[in-house]
Amino acid sequence: MDGTLTERGRQTRQRIIEATGQQILAGGIGGTTLDGVRAATLTSKSQLFHYFPGGKNELVREVAAWEGDQLLAAQLPWLDDLSTWESWHAWRDALVDYYLGLGRWACPIGSMAWEAAATDPELAAGIAEAMRAWRGKLADGVRRLQAAGGVAPTSDPERLAAAILAAVQGGLMLSQPERSSWPLEAALDSLLDVLRAGAPATNVP
Amino acid sequence: MDGTLTERGRQTRQRIIEATGQQILAGGIGGTTLDGVRAATLTSKSQLFHYFPGGKNELVREVAAWEGDQLLAAQLPWLDDLSTWESWHAWRDALVDYYLGLGRWACPIGSMAWEAAATDPELAAGIAEAMRAWRGKLADGVRRLQAAGGVAPTSDPERLAAAILAAVQGGLMLSQPERSSWPLEAALDSLLDVLRAGAPATNVP
Repeated sequence: MDGTLTERGRQTRQRIIEATGQQILAGGIGGTTLDGVRAATLTSKSQLFHYFPGGKNELVREVAAWEGDQLLAAQLPWLDDLSTWESWHAWRDALVDYYLGLGRWACPIGSMAWEAAATDPELAAGIAEAMRAWRGKLADGVRRLQAAGGVAPTSDPERLAAAILAAVQGGLMLSQPERSSWPLEAALDSLLDVLRAGAPATNVP
Repeated sequence: MDGTLTERGRQTRQRIIEATGQQILAGGIGGTTLDGVRAATLTSKSQLFHYFPGGKNELVREVAAWEGDQLLAAQLPWLDDLSTWESWHAWRDALVDYYLGLGRWACPIGSMAWEAAATDPELAAGIAEAMRAWRGKLADGVRRLQAAGGVAPTSDPERLAAAILAAVQGGLMLSQPERSSWPLEAALDSLLDVLRAGAPATNVP
């Protein structure tokens, strides 16, 4: 749809997406209503359906897609590299900084996953696909580090990538009530230790 | 309240709690209604308020408490030990079996955490407290293994415990859309590798 919008239309559409994202963070998907979004963005019902003919479900999916893009962008250029220890550590720092910048220890995508699984199969499938794509990029990174001799050749990149992404998501879940990054950092650093422990050169005590 | 209930009253109350737990798994907290619980349990409105005077919020908190108790019980007796590798591996297997037995790759407590954070501060505080208690038991286990010489004395038990619990919660989140335990097992096993890597005796290549 974006291709047919004027610049002003594009801005309005984006304003609606961002305001909806704020409402989801504050009240969950269940606590988000089109009336609330209209009030926050001073838009009319017909404007809302002009930009999002599928109503709330379409709008929530567009929020998830936009937040997924933001999240990936925050991890660049490192996420596309990860062939060195420096790259892994820069990736880890960029990710922690991204969540810190959100002002809330929550993954905009991951925090929707359970509610989506229970209420909107299409949204749940989209979130699962975003997680698989993210996991795939981490697995590619493990393979690059492995090719460079930084990880044991016997390590399974897919399993390590799943463990790293689990550390991100589970770490955020534990960080949220503590209002601190320490659980996220502890989880991420433990996984970077796993990678490092597999490196032949670091197996020397 | 339990103390003043007849055996039959206790059974009815428990039946209501379990039916509510099923509704939360199927539709989230937001998708759970007292009318739905009444229909599923064939109870009257006055019965429901007799057992749960605080209405839906009280009922959801009782579900979380009951599910938290079930989850801890499933990890016994290992969770109270964890002083040996055998104990850690038996704990890991019992936990995976527990989630397998639920028929759904989700933590009954963890899957409520994000929605609770957005909608019910008292419930969110209760879930956070349950997570801290669980994390504390894992940290005690790391200390016992450390005292037995199984973990490097320089390792921080609180950080390792947070990383292990993050692996459980994040692993479940990735397992759910895959309908498979492999991401959970990959995340858990990576963390057990971290513990093991810290053991002086296993640092020998």
